[in-house]
Amino acid sequence: MKDITLKEIAIKLGISITTVSKALKNYPDVSQKTKSAVIELAQKLHYTPNSFAVNLRTKESKTIGLIIPEVMHHFFSNVINAIIDEAEKNGYLVIILQSNESLALEKKQVELLINKRVDGILMSLSNESNNDEHIQQIVDRNIPFVMFDKISKLCKCSKVIIDDQKAAFNAVQHLIDNGCKKIVHIRGPLNPQNAIDRYIGYKKALEKNNIPFDSKLVYTCENVTFQEGIDFAKQIIEEHPDVDGIFAITDLVAVGVLSYFNDIGIKIPEQVAVIGFSNWFMSQVLTPKLSTVDQPSHEMGVESFNLLLEQMNCHKLDQPFVPRTVLLETAVIARESSLK
Amino acid sequence: MKDITLKEIAIKLGISITTVSKALKNYPDVSQKTKSAVIELAQKLHYTPNSFAVNLRTKESKTIGLIIPEVMHHFFSNVINAIIDEAEKNGYLVIILQSNESLALEKKQVELLINKRVDGILMSLSNESNNDEHIQQIVDRNIPFVMFDKISKLCKCSKVIIDDQKAAFNAVQHLIDNGCKKIVHIRGPLNPQNAIDRYIGYKKALEKNNIPFDSKLVYTCENVTFQEGIDFAKQIIEEHPDVDGIFAITDLVAVGVLSYFNDIGIKIPEQVAVIGFSNWFMSQVLTPKLSTVDQPSHEMGVESFNLLLEQMNCHKLDQPFVPRTVLLETAVIARESSLK
Repeated sequence: MKDITLKEIAIKLGISITTVSKALKNYPDVSQKTKSAVIELAQKLHYTPNSFAVNLRTKESKTIGLIIPEVMHHFFSNVINAIIDEAEKNGYLVIILQSNESLALEKKQVELLINKRVDGILMSLSNESNNDEHIQQIVDRNIPFVMFDKISKLCKCSKVIIDDQKAAFNAVQHLIDNGCKKIVHIRGPLNPQNAIDRYIGYKKALEKNNIPFDSKLVYTCENVTFQEGIDFAKQIIEEHPDVDGIFAITDLVAVGVLSYFNDIGIKIPEQVAVIGFSNWFMSQVLTPKLSTVDQPSHEMGVESFNLLLEQMNCHKLDQPFVPRTVLLETAVIARESSLK
Repeated sequence: MKDITLKEIAIKLGISITTVSKALKNYPDVSQKTKSAVIELAQKLHYTPNSFAVNLRTKESKTIGLIIPEVMHHFFSNVINAIIDEAEKNGYLVIILQSNESLALEKKQVELLINKRVDGILMSLSNESNNDEHIQQIVDRNIPFVMFDKISKLCKCSKVIIDDQKAAFNAVQHLIDNGCKKIVHIRGPLNPQNAIDRYIGYKKALEKNNIPFDSKLVYTCENVTFQEGIDFAKQIIEEHPDVDGIFAITDLVAVGVLSYFNDIGIKIPEQVAVIGFSNWFMSQVLTPKLSTVDQPSHEMGVESFNLLLEQMNCHKLDQPFVPRTVLLETAVIARESSLK
């Protein structure tokens, strides 16, 4: 079906295009009778104002872009949920792209969003990314930009994060407080900042408690999956049968560990205590219920959008905006899997 | 930062705007030397072709809209994941909106997407929606449109669905085959077509096996939550202590049932067998592992996008398109919670 234009409405009613346009915008210098006639016909013909034309005038697209590593992930779906709702409340639409942890794809997606003239970009980095050129480009072009969760420390943009070092430190301290002496860390990949920080937090907790660090007790995930949890659990118990605690980079991996230990009859927490990270929904319904670190995903989405909104508003008015970092609180959630 | 225009590049290089435009589009009548100079300067100045202008010319936005009831839902995140990836492969961006099961919000969102001139709309209905005016409007305006999973039977558009009646019939037959004689159905709300169909499937399975239908054994969820599963489990065991099987509308509710029964020591499946629907990830890691119906969520996303793409391509060429319905296969996944 062809789009209806102002001209067609004008011709049908025998009035000028300007009058039609003014009537639709409720200008006071158009009679109520004409306004009613225009609105009635416009509705009948399914007239829609051309939003691309509007865009050329206001220079706003009222659309933001969101790039995340993966949609199918408990933490990120929570964040998306909060961002979409918050954007909607403020009249913005959200284009969502997933990098699938690939730097190449993420670069292409930044390009796409810039070409689409989104008003702002929210982003959580892929495992392969850092302060790369495509990130720098967003800042250089002065496009409102907020990074959250998986960020680049070097990039001069706003950030919404948790203190991963402190959160990991507390998780490991919790295991130690519950009697663990030989603690494995199943860490994330080598590149992402949050995996590095959680690893540092683990080391610091050992140091503080005078437990010698042993690099053989650190296992590194490639893809941070349930299956890696299962495989590492098997390897850990073969290589270090006397391990009594495991701190996993995220609940999904910890659930893999639980699943394997349940299957082969290793008692949790009696023989090995386990703690995850992120407080995935399923953690509370497992047997035993999984201890974890609560990461405020909803709040992270809300804060990220609102920080972006602030910058977009400054941008619109050509006002300066100084990027800032919002640090959100975390908390250890102690459940059956770690309480000896 | 102000956007760079073709005019500025032209002035800086002392050539015409037409030549700049042709150079960027690699026209053969522009010399290689000029092309190189234009491209080099455009890159240096971060020139981006104005995509709104492009839109006015091609009448395409290369953007589609996706409206779903909720993002934070295992089934829907799977579908979103597939749709985003499939769209990306085909050069489309996806705007995602969630209706939060509200008809009013869904109506507003359809309006927004139409005003945004998306090239097509994918939609799974809220629990409150049916063949309402806003749905009819999409069809009347000839906007490419595919409904999936939660659909309106009356709407004349393409659909990607499963056979909910058959799938539910098979789930209940599975319970009967495993010795269940008094089976409760925890159903979804009264309005959504898939909840109605699963309820009909439940009744048909009883009928086929000469088990009298008893409306007191049907419990109706309002919001289809984990907590409702817990609450109904309590109510069921108080009102009908001799129930030996439960078929829940979705895994999330079944997990609530499992959780409550585990807590109070009711043996699953020995005393009560339980089967859910949708095969959520967590179902396989629970104790006992939850039986369920596998619903091809990824395939549903892929099929929905490709059906939409076909219609968008026809639309672009002003060719007729006849809507069609794609029916995807389901399968009962028998795990510990139902194998007596």
